[in-house]
Amino acid sequence: MSTQYDKGLKLLNQLHGGHTGEEIVKAFGDISPNMLKWTIEWGFGEVLSNPALDLKTRELTIIASLIAQPASPQLKAHLEAALNAGAREAEIVAMIEQLAIYVGFPTACNAMILAKEVFQNIKTGS
Amino acid sequence: MSTQYDKGLKLLNQLHGGHTGEEIVKAFGDISPNMLKWTIEWGFGEVLSNPALDLKTRELTIIASLIAQPASPQLKAHLEAALNAGAREAEIVAMIEQLAIYVGFPTACNAMILAKEVFQNIKTGS
Amino acid sequence: MSTQYDKGLKLLNQLHGGHTGEEIVKAFGDISPNMLKWTIEWGFGEVLSNPALDLKTRELTIIASLIAQPASPQLKAHLEAALNAGAREAEIVAMIEQLAIYVGFPTACNAMILAKEVFQNIKTGS
Amino acid sequence: MSTQYDKGLKLLNQLHGGHTGEEIVKAFGDISPNMLKWTIEWGFGEVLSNPALDLKTRELTIIASLIAQPASPQLKAHLEAALNAGAREAEIVAMIEQLAIYVGFPTACNAMILAKEVFQNIKTGS
Amino acid sequence: MSTQYDKGLKLLNQLHGGHTGEEIVKAFGDISPNMLKWTIEWGFGEVLSNPALDLKTRELTIIASLIAQPASPQLKAHLEAALNAGAREAEIVAMIEQLAIYVGFPTACNAMILAKEVFQNIKTGS
Amino acid sequence: MSTQYDKGLKLLNQLHGGHTGEEIVKAFGDISPNMLKWTIEWGFGEVLSNPALDLKTRELTIIASLIAQPASPQLKAHLEAALNAGAREAEIVAMIEQLAIYVGFPTACNAMILAKEVFQNIKTGS
Repeated sequence: MSTQYDKGLKLLNQLHGGHTGEEIVKAFGDISPNMLKWTIEWGFGEVLSNPALDLKTRELTIIASLIAQPASPQLKAHLEAALNAGAREAEIVAMIEQLAIYVGFPTACNAMILAKEVFQNIKTGS
Repeated sequence: MSTQYDKGLKLLNQLHGGHTGEEIVKAFGDISPNMLKWTIEWGFGEVLSNPALDLKTRELTIIASLIAQPASPQLKAHLEAALNAGAREAEIVAMIEQLAIYVGFPTACNAMILAKEVFQNIKTGS
Repeated sequence: MSTQYDKGLKLLNQLHGGHTGEEIVKAFGDISPNMLKWTIEWGFGEVLSNPALDLKTRELTIIASLIAQPASPQLKAHLEAALNAGAREAEIVAMIEQLAIYVGFPTACNAMILAKEVFQNIKTGS
Repeated sequence: MSTQYDKGLKLLNQLHGGHTGEEIVKAFGDISPNMLKWTIEWGFGEVLSNPALDLKTRELTIIASLIAQPASPQLKAHLEAALNAGAREAEIVAMIEQLAIYVGFPTACNAMILAKEVFQNIKTGS
Repeated sequence: MSTQYDKGLKLLNQLHGGHTGEEIVKAFGDISPNMLKWTIEWGFGEVLSNPALDLKTRELTIIASLIAQPASPQLKAHLEAALNAGAREAEIVAMIEQLAIYVGFPTACNAMILAKEVFQNIKTGS
Repeated sequence: MSTQYDKGLKLLNQLHGGHTGEEIVKAFGDISPNMLKWTIEWGFGEVLSNPALDLKTRELTIIASLIAQPASPQLKAHLEAALNAGAREAEIVAMIEQLAIYVGFPTACNAMILAKEVFQNIKTGS
């Protein structure tokens, strides 16, 4: 594996916690080793590692982008990652509230319910 | 007009420059006074005025949300507003680059071309 | 709470039934009191209360708008609300059939299956 | 041509005006006679001719569905068709205002600007 | 039933297997006989029966189109149909990998997980 | 530049013609050298160069994916690339006709009009 892969895996684990790194390897390792390599080596090791934007702002803008997509597993993972990158719950709530203006209330409300679930899981350690 | 309307108009002018405030009044004042009132009083005067999230992060997440929508006039306006809220060009570029992962390259590339245009217009004062 | 909040809550209960009002309060009351207030006070108390459009047409156009969104809990709630606002099942079926032209068959077919479920739940009182 | 084609062409001309019928024939007649036939024979001659839903509600729900799509030529055509089917300008404005809740303000605002243009063109006969 | 209906039902069964044909009849036969008729007679009997494009390419392009839609039941059905039309698993994997460029990684990854599930179900005969 | 960059640039020129390669360099070379590198090195040099799927099927599925996106410059470029990869006009027309089922008529009709324009430009050499 390349240095960039190692760098990517380290950032992945920092943002999503060790178990997520293992889950990605398990999910894509057999069916699509390309997807696995690109996600870790290019996505985390190159794009998100670029110091031009701080990790907290990265995660908040990723959430904003995922909210209107049919991609709830990823949305949940990045809500956790935003907290790991230093965002406070109140900031995430204010950001989702704001998106009600830009993507409409149904989509923003569903994201809020997901955020509530993520915050509660973290509190109960599940 | 209410105090919240005045507060909203002030924030609108701070973020988008005085001319945009006038443009919104001109665009919606006759056909939909409701749209005008809600945008200024509720959108700017209440939602975006909430101090729980800073204006720079607000604008970057608005851009992230608009990028996948067929709403280019608003995307252009918020690219300007992000700069007015203190975002640096390099941060905006890194954020759009990152979105290539989350919304795909065509959408991210088209946003980059729009950003380039906005940055150039500001430099030439047009 | 304001008069507009009371007006909104009344319309919410008229359209969605009392239990939905309670559910919204329970879902958002703690994590985002803003979302709750805006939904009831502004959404129901101001926008949907505007007599310029009748409630039945409001609900049918809301359904049309939700059908292409990843927002099935809301779609289900508004299928019920459309019936409460006086739409007949045959009108809803014809409307969803028509959307096959405008959003494609998969999306329209999935909405039809959801409508079938809503109609059956109402018949069996569940 | 079949009876259903004639029925479809008649409804197309009733809703969109004679010139639009000719435009569709011109646009698709050579490259895709199938698209032309399906639109007129199936879309207008069968789906929209179904008396289970009135034409005015049909057009308002079509507009609601088109508003979030990158399909502005069709949105413009159906704003005209809604007026031809008996919708009043105030109803269309109230419907678009309402969609701000469900699809967000940028999309609703852009639709409002398009509606304003359509209303003005009709007044000036262009 | 028309000849075109029979032709459509035959192609439906060829692509999706006999059980899917029965499922569609069961799902829509009572609530929307129109949806059933249009899907089989027009969709399968006319559009997909057109020999201008081979069935394997048809199914791969349908999958590409469904991947960004909130329509996972249909996506699953067409992943099976693509295999029935002669596509190899490696081609489907390469096609989904490629879509990471065009619709982003979250959407492509979720499609890959669905494909993995479909491939496994076929192997275990479930 | 890496070998993979050279391989990518060669495929880019094969599919899109030499002028498009120059256009991409001009568009992104200054504002986002990353976007340029990733597009050529990763997109063309790695993903699309994977022999697991033939170039013609690649281009047809890319078109299917782009059709529902607000990304018309890319859609136009890939309609040309599909022809360069060996797709016949009749196949592209049949594929777009088929998408009317899956994404709706407005989106498919707008894609057909774009395809017509691309086919005509090629005939007249513009």
